[in-house]
Amino acid sequence: MEALKQSTDALFILLGAVMVLAMHAGFAFLELGTVRRKNQVNALVKILADFSVSAVVYFLVGYTVAYGSHFFVGAEQLAAKNGYELVKFFFLLTFAAAIPAIISGGIAERARFWPQLVATAVIVGLLYPVFEGIAWNQNFGVQAWIKARTGAEFHDFAGSVVVHAVGGWIALGAVVLLGARSNRYRKDGAVSAHPPSSIPFLALGAWVLTVSWFGFNVMSAQTLDKMSGLVAVNSLMAMAGGTLAALVVGKMTQASCTTGRWQGW
Amino acid sequence: MEALKQSTDALFILLGAVMVLAMHAGFAFLELGTVRRKNQVNALVKILADFSVSAVVYFLVGYTVAYGSHFFVGAEQLAAKNGYELVKFFFLLTFAAAIPAIISGGIAERARFWPQLVATAVIVGLLYPVFEGIAWNQNFGVQAWIKARTGAEFHDFAGSVVVHAVGGWIALGAVVLLGARSNRYRKDGAVSAHPPSSIPFLALGAWVLTVSWFGFNVMSAQTLDKMSGLVAVNSLMAMAGGTLAALVVGKMTQASCTTGRWQGW
Amino acid sequence: MEALKQSTDALFILLGAVMVLAMHAGFAFLELGTVRRKNQVNALVKILADFSVSAVVYFLVGYTVAYGSHFFVGAEQLAAKNGYELVKFFFLLTFAAAIPAIISGGIAERARFWPQLVATAVIVGLLYPVFEGIAWNQNFGVQAWIKARTGAEFHDFAGSVVVHAVGGWIALGAVVLLGARSNRYRKDGAVSAHPPSSIPFLALGAWVLTVSWFGFNVMSAQTLDKMSGLVAVNSLMAMAGGTLAALVVGKMTQASCTTGRWQGW
Repeated sequence: MEALKQSTDALFILLGAVMVLAMHAGFAFLELGTVRRKNQVNALVKILADFSVSAVVYFLVGYTVAYGSHFFVGAEQLAAKNGYELVKFFFLLTFAAAIPAIISGGIAERARFWPQLVATAVIVGLLYPVFEGIAWNQNFGVQAWIKARTGAEFHDFAGSVVVHAVGGWIALGAVVLLGARSNRYRKDGAVSAHPPSSIPFLALGAWVLTVSWFGFNVMSAQTLDKMSGLVAVNSLMAMAGGTLAALVVGKMTQASCTTGRWQGW
Repeated sequence: MEALKQSTDALFILLGAVMVLAMHAGFAFLELGTVRRKNQVNALVKILADFSVSAVVYFLVGYTVAYGSHFFVGAEQLAAKNGYELVKFFFLLTFAAAIPAIISGGIAERARFWPQLVATAVIVGLLYPVFEGIAWNQNFGVQAWIKARTGAEFHDFAGSVVVHAVGGWIALGAVVLLGARSNRYRKDGAVSAHPPSSIPFLALGAWVLTVSWFGFNVMSAQTLDKMSGLVAVNSLMAMAGGTLAALVVGKMTQASCTTGRWQGW
Repeated sequence: MEALKQSTDALFILLGAVMVLAMHAGFAFLELGTVRRKNQVNALVKILADFSVSAVVYFLVGYTVAYGSHFFVGAEQLAAKNGYELVKFFFLLTFAAAIPAIISGGIAERARFWPQLVATAVIVGLLYPVFEGIAWNQNFGVQAWIKARTGAEFHDFAGSVVVHAVGGWIALGAVVLLGARSNRYRKDGAVSAHPPSSIPFLALGAWVLTVSWFGFNVMSAQTLDKMSGLVAVNSLMAMAGGTLAALVVGKMTQASCTTGRWQGW
């Protein structure tokens, strides 16, 4: 019984890890479809390289910074309980690696490859784990301090602040630092449009993110007994509502597609 | 023990829901690859908008029409039993939303966007749930009547009639109503060929449908104890047999690809 | 309890089967992106036809050659234990069908369609199952002989030799037999470059393989109790390490992309 519970927990969080790994393909194709054609391959390589650097630094440093434990022990110990701790690392790595992926989309076409890779190492190895440990591992007593002040801890179930906002904040800083694309504005100040190079690939990336998001949110419960269908359906309804709101706003503002291929409704 | 059974059931049907959600990406890319280039974006937007409208109307109306229950209760009640009832809703929604997706492919390039969205709302909110409730929830005593007449109820394990035939019937009506594409026939009555705009994306959609179909069929058992590998392998063999039959028939009829890129065998 | 264990085992191996089925889409798009544009459709059709032929011959002959059992029994027997034996067949079929997919990539653009399909039937129906049965079912006493000689059996957890090396060996023979593409070398002996027709689709195939590989490796445990997170994280780290090594080597050799679209770093 206990063995079955353990193994289903390991399967549960593995499914989450695999789905959020797939999200990185989603990030890659979303960026590939959005940037100009000449930067498509760069987008693909960047996301894959960022993920790989993230895997190594989060394994060597980041996970220890956030949770105080490491994996430099014997294989028997690692394989105990169906290797649950390792799969949990895999799952949390896919969260950590989302940070550079979010930033990458924000500064697409404006950053050099190797410096960005170094930034990824620092962010995933140190910056993010410090914040992650504060929010999810009670590090530095910040949660205790918040609770003493407000009566409740800061609660983030699936990384809406820890992952997505932190990624967005860093991306904002990077965007301000890097400025606009070199030929983004014409001499008279008008915007020089860069239409997405491939709406099908952009949509492919968005679909992969949509589907895999359920691994991000539902498997954030980390063990199967804490899984909640409410999380799944809230995520689903957020997607549906967001899509419909975008449709209505788009209709109201008479949006016309920049590619010139749009047929209208 | 009972808790573990409950949570594995919730995981089981969630996996089905996520896979059939992915099928909607499959519908989108199948249609995108099949239509002319100028209608690619329209195909993508239609499938996503149809799914989102379906999610809202099936939540508000359709599910209640089919099963007599609703979700306007407190969060504690919704989260009970790992939120199984909500995940079941998610799963059945992906079935319901397949109806407009099937119709959409049937009338691709021939329907206006907003009227089609209204039709989707009516079909997923009312028409389909009436039929779904008759077949799967004993509504209106139709199953009892069939059983009294024939000795057995009408049995549809995974929606081959409830979803696929119903979708096809409505699509047939829509096709008859809308007629051929405006420039489909030349003045002399000959067909004006519209080759698929992208066989790779068409194939991508087909592959997504192929893989995710196992969520549609296997998870139709709805609880893990009723799962059957026979369903999985029947689905697999149907795919293999269909592919081989199409190959042989194609060879016999000396099919030549309309795109002019086909190299022959 | 036993029923729950059985059904979770069936779900576990089904998830593996579905993921490795998805890998065949990965093989298809990897090959599609790599070959010249005129051969894209051929690549798609070949992988799908090879898989379908594999499914039929492995069901009829191959599985029996490897494991001595077959499925020509009543449906009740097939559906016993949630149809675990059938799902295991599905899982092992996706391994067997990887052999022609690996070969297909090796001899892309150089083999005729129907002869290759016949070769697939022979390889998946006979050749591979003989080797598979030797390694994984103690057939012909080879494992016993190895153990008597060396003190341990030949151990292959997830097919690194049984599937990938065997596929590679056969592909090597086929490559030697078929020789170079007809216009691969110019009169002066210089290579005539055939750049990949689509790096985005090539990358899509690679991502599908990357993500689904976890089904190949982790679900090779075949029952949930034997699942190990160590397998998952070893697979993950192999991917990350391979990517980083390729980056460094590429940088050192000043690789320039053959497509002319590469921007440099």
